[in-house]
Amino acid sequence: DYFHSMQTVTLIPGDGIGPEISSAVMKIFEAAKAPIRWEERNVTAIKGPGGRWMIPPDAKESMDRNKIGLKGPLKTPIAAGHPSMNLLLRKTFDLYANVRPCISIEGYKTPYTNVDLVTIRENTEGEYSGIEHVIVEGVVQSIKLITEDASRRIAEYAFEYARNNQRSSVTAVHKANIMRMSDGLFLRKCREVAEGYKDIKFTEMYLDTVCLNMVQDPTQFDVLVMPNLYGDILSDLCAGLIGGLGVTPSGNIGANGVAIFESVHGTAPDIAGLDMANPTALLLSAVMMLRHMGLHDYGNKIQTACFDTIRDKKVLTKDLGGNSKCSEFTADICRRIQDLD
Amino acid sequence: DYFHSMQTVTLIPGDGIGPEISSAVMKIFEAAKAPIRWEERNVTAIKGPGGRWMIPPDAKESMDRNKIGLKGPLKTPIAAGHPSMNLLLRKTFDLYANVRPCISIEGYKTPYTNVDLVTIRENTEGEYSGIEHVIVEGVVQSIKLITEDASRRIAEYAFEYARNNQRSSVTAVHKANIMRMSDGLFLRKCREVAEGYKDIKFTEMYLDTVCLNMVQDPTQFDVLVMPNLYGDILSDLCAGLIGGLGVTPSGNIGANGVAIFESVHGTAPDIAGLDMANPTALLLSAVMMLRHMGLHDYGNKIQTACFDTIRDKKVLTKDLGGNSKCSEFTADICRRIQDLD
Ligand SMILES: CC(C)[C@H](C(=O)O)[C@@H](O)C(=O)O
Ligand SMILES: CC(C)[C@H](C(=O)O)[C@@H](O)C(=O)O
Repeated sequence: DYFHSMQTVTLIPGDGIGPEISSAVMKIFEAAKAPIRWEERNVTAIKGPGGRWMIPPDAKESMDRNKIGLKGPLKTPIAAGHPSMNLLLRKTFDLYANVRPCISIEGYKTPYTNVDLVTIRENTEGEYSGIEHVIVEGVVQSIKLITEDASRRIAEYAFEYARNNQRSSVTAVHKANIMRMSDGLFLRKCREVAEGYKDIKFTEMYLDTVCLNMVQDPTQFDVLVMPNLYGDILSDLCAGLIGGLGVTPSGNIGANGVAIFESVHGTAPDIAGLDMANPTALLLSAVMMLRHMGLHDYGNKIQTACFDTIRDKKVLTKDLGGNSKCSEFTADICRRIQDLD
Repeated sequence: DYFHSMQTVTLIPGDGIGPEISSAVMKIFEAAKAPIRWEERNVTAIKGPGGRWMIPPDAKESMDRNKIGLKGPLKTPIAAGHPSMNLLLRKTFDLYANVRPCISIEGYKTPYTNVDLVTIRENTEGEYSGIEHVIVEGVVQSIKLITEDASRRIAEYAFEYARNNQRSSVTAVHKANIMRMSDGLFLRKCREVAEGYKDIKFTEMYLDTVCLNMVQDPTQFDVLVMPNLYGDILSDLCAGLIGGLGVTPSGNIGANGVAIFESVHGTAPDIAGLDMANPTALLLSAVMMLRHMGLHDYGNKIQTACFDTIRDKKVLTKDLGGNSKCSEFTADICRRIQDLD
């Protein structure tokens, strides 16, 4: 285990509490002797040639070279015409799949127990096409764009994910009763791809039914795959079931091994720099990253230590119901990792 | 109270368990001496001139005359090209607002208590425009249509509803960060209308954030207003919070007093005719109807009796956790109504 060659990962610490939780993750990785070297980059959007917003060339170059990134929260730009950094990153690196495992954390009380599901969201098209028109004064159209290629690609990703992560079913979430052509196409591609994965059970469900059933009994779900907007909604809903964005990891996956893992909570400027932030979401995202890189042992070790710290309830940050500092929480996880060795 | 003049309501018993739960409601209305005369009509779609699907002329005529309808579940048509009956009814009578009060029922255990909110869904346009195109092989567009008029109308309905029902806030639910023009227009109309209701607090929230917060603490919400698809999702999600479609009422409101109240659960063909169905959703929809007609006293009396029966837990249908028949559940509610007099 100690002889893995080091791999370099682009680290985007982000804004607000981003730097604190990033350094917490780095400390924990060090304690776990994870074979990762960090290359820090800033991704504040800049105006490129022709006035188009882009991420700084050195950040792009770093990601292109390393293929794997870990990213803290970025503040929402307020300049008019400034794009969402999340959308810009997805676009720049064609990160077509957003993956969010939602797994109940023992000892962290929510209305639900034993949630264990994964939402897989198509990240590049659908309702996020950005194509809109004013038809006449007071009448506006937004276009939802669904393509065969993107639908097949996300369906394939979902089934591969299910197979590689010992999951037994994939549910396609849709409204093909209303959007017969677009969601119909999405669904058809899911069905076709499902044919090649006889080991994985395939089902189809309406989005409204999924939402209703989800809040009644989330344990019935396993892997869910869906178009962009439905994924935006369901991934946040499911995060809510297990305790919110502060404990939910997220990964954005592209072609050829490119991927950015990130915490999806905000920058919490009110507590930035006060050593109060909770690094769990970024840490669990980093664990997803390790698994994505094939470093399962390191990932498992870190996750076990993190969950043990939470279950134990003695050293928790404020948002988790305790009164420890970020650095104390981090140290407790590091200590457990060393004990595991 | 006994001298109200009778009003006639179109009753669409529906399919499957529809007739049983409709007659349960009629019995309870009789026990409450509600001044309602029922006019039964069947709305199975028929093919009109030019091959267009329409509801039978005598049902249309009855609704046009009475303006108010109560409707049980209708089976989903399976013939190709056959429209959803729900969509056909909304269209035929321009029922532009779907209203769903979601209120926790004491004694009926769910993961949440004290839910007390109302979803108000724009029912005529948005993602349900039905406009779709194949651009080229493998590339499909669906059009979301948002108009100033429909947005203003639903916003006005929401604020009027809030004011008339002693509610203190209205939240507009949107994704105007993504669909800047369409959801932007919707939001602008909500803001404009809000100006005229200084007694009602107005807030705006992203749909994904609402879903996340909803499952974490639904008690923070009051009246929510939103475009069609978001309403489809949120109304079902919220129904799930209080126990599902079997206990959630629904009303579809049009212009000039026209309205159809309905249970939104299925026809449950497996238990149809077996005296096992739960009439609660249709009954609470009928209570909404009474309030809509200004008959609050009758509505309150029936609701109190229904909630007392459920809280008491002695006479419950199977889906509510008991082993009583539909007729026994109904009789218990009738008895309580008589005791209240
Ligand atoms: C910030 C916003 C553009 C984004 C989205 O809607 O996709 C966010 O909600 C997310 O899920 O990453
Ligand atoms: C049956 C279907 C067309 C309908 C919809 O999507 O609106 C249903 O989900 C509803 O909410 O009434």
